[in-house]
Amino acid sequence: MTNEIVSAAMLAIGDELLSGRTKDKNIGHLADILTAVGIDLKEVRIVPDEEDRIVDALNALRGTYDYVFTSGGIGPTHDDITADAISKAFGVPCEHDAKAMKLMGDNYAARGMEFTESRQRMARMPRGSVHIDNPVSTAPGFNIGNVYVMAGVPSIFQAMLDNVIPTLKVGKQLLSRSINCPFGEGTIAIPLRDIQTAHPDTIIGSYPKYENNKFSTELVVRARDEDKLVAAEQAVRAMVEQLSVAQQI
Amino acid sequence: MTNEIVSAAMLAIGDELLSGRTKDKNIGHLADILTAVGIDLKEVRIVPDEEDRIVDALNALRGTYDYVFTSGGIGPTHDDITADAISKAFGVPCEHDAKAMKLMGDNYAARGMEFTESRQRMARMPRGSVHIDNPVSTAPGFNIGNVYVMAGVPSIFQAMLDNVIPTLKVGKQLLSRSINCPFGEGTIAIPLRDIQTAHPDTIIGSYPKYENNKFSTELVVRARDEDKLVAAEQAVRAMVEQLSVAQQI
Repeated sequence: MTNEIVSAAMLAIGDELLSGRTKDKNIGHLADILTAVGIDLKEVRIVPDEEDRIVDALNALRGTYDYVFTSGGIGPTHDDITADAISKAFGVPCEHDAKAMKLMGDNYAARGMEFTESRQRMARMPRGSVHIDNPVSTAPGFNIGNVYVMAGVPSIFQAMLDNVIPTLKVGKQLLSRSINCPFGEGTIAIPLRDIQTAHPDTIIGSYPKYENNKFSTELVVRARDEDKLVAAEQAVRAMVEQLSVAQQI
Repeated sequence: MTNEIVSAAMLAIGDELLSGRTKDKNIGHLADILTAVGIDLKEVRIVPDEEDRIVDALNALRGTYDYVFTSGGIGPTHDDITADAISKAFGVPCEHDAKAMKLMGDNYAARGMEFTESRQRMARMPRGSVHIDNPVSTAPGFNIGNVYVMAGVPSIFQAMLDNVIPTLKVGKQLLSRSINCPFGEGTIAIPLRDIQTAHPDTIIGSYPKYENNKFSTELVVRARDEDKLVAAEQAVRAMVEQLSVAQQI
């Protein structure tokens, strides 16, 4: 663990995410896992299966954040162009990786299936990539520079991510406490702002919920230092308590 | 309706989306609605509640696409900074809108509630904005230039979007047909690529599913011209049929 803040971005690739046909499940999963290990996810972009758009987004993100994680576009069909786009972004050839060819060839042979030209497409990656193991369906993802390229199918994305996480540097975790508040934001905004001002090393967020024609809020205090976290949390809880008493008078 | 293609982007704003605490529901909804009316959603970005990040992303997106839709950060609390950031991006003052002040003031008065300083924050918007009606909780969203600023709470986002959609220009709808295919991508990739080549005015996508230790695919044909759509769809269905027969031999 390092004391510095480690930042990350995600690039989700696929027309189907932008047409609404597929509802992304990988962004939320990645966010959960990175938060848990102490890496700050700072930006997400979703782009279509268009090479220039992938290249531009990837280059913007990999220059800005410590890590970039991508999902989608590494299958065998004509619309799977992620390996080519990542190669172009890094300015290296996209080629059949010898180790991946062996791994996949052996796997198809063991299953009595032909290792066709299209299946071999899944062994293509930018020269110099390191494999990300795929325990679900063999065809590996890959890591090049600070970019981790993974499948879009959620079960495979998750399995690949499990293999990547232990290899990453992680920062001091942003600790978090959540307080349910029965009042709407309009009621709490001023005292909550004052608590934020009094606890500058914390991040206090207010998330409105609207259910049964009534607003309530979830208040979330975050800090890297536990003492500061607890102090701000207690101030928020005291505020909610005070407002509850005031309502009963 | 216009024959040109109408493009759009979404900017989802909020630390909670990047920490994993909130799983976004607005991106998928917007994608569904825009696809249905004939607007192509071409990019999505998720950014934290940080002014510079919102300004930079908004300026990149509004210069590239016909429309930009934002979600989140328009409530009354200190972490709601979207109105300020959008004003900064457009280079105009962020100020209490007289019409919004009246609307909200009347509403709170009718409910016997005080129209506090923090509630008045929700009436702030960039000078020159047009309201987006909020039938759920009164405080309006706003439109300035080609940007539509809406709430992050899904029920309110959806209600605001319903009010926005009829005011937009829409393009020729991208029609879509979906074909379930019992084969994995490795089996279909070559014939599917050939169908794509033979039907250049269509977009043929292949979306793998992995369930019960078995891959299958959903094949989606899209086109703006119905005859071309149907021709490509029939070719894909014939391919699936032919592969099914081949498997039984």
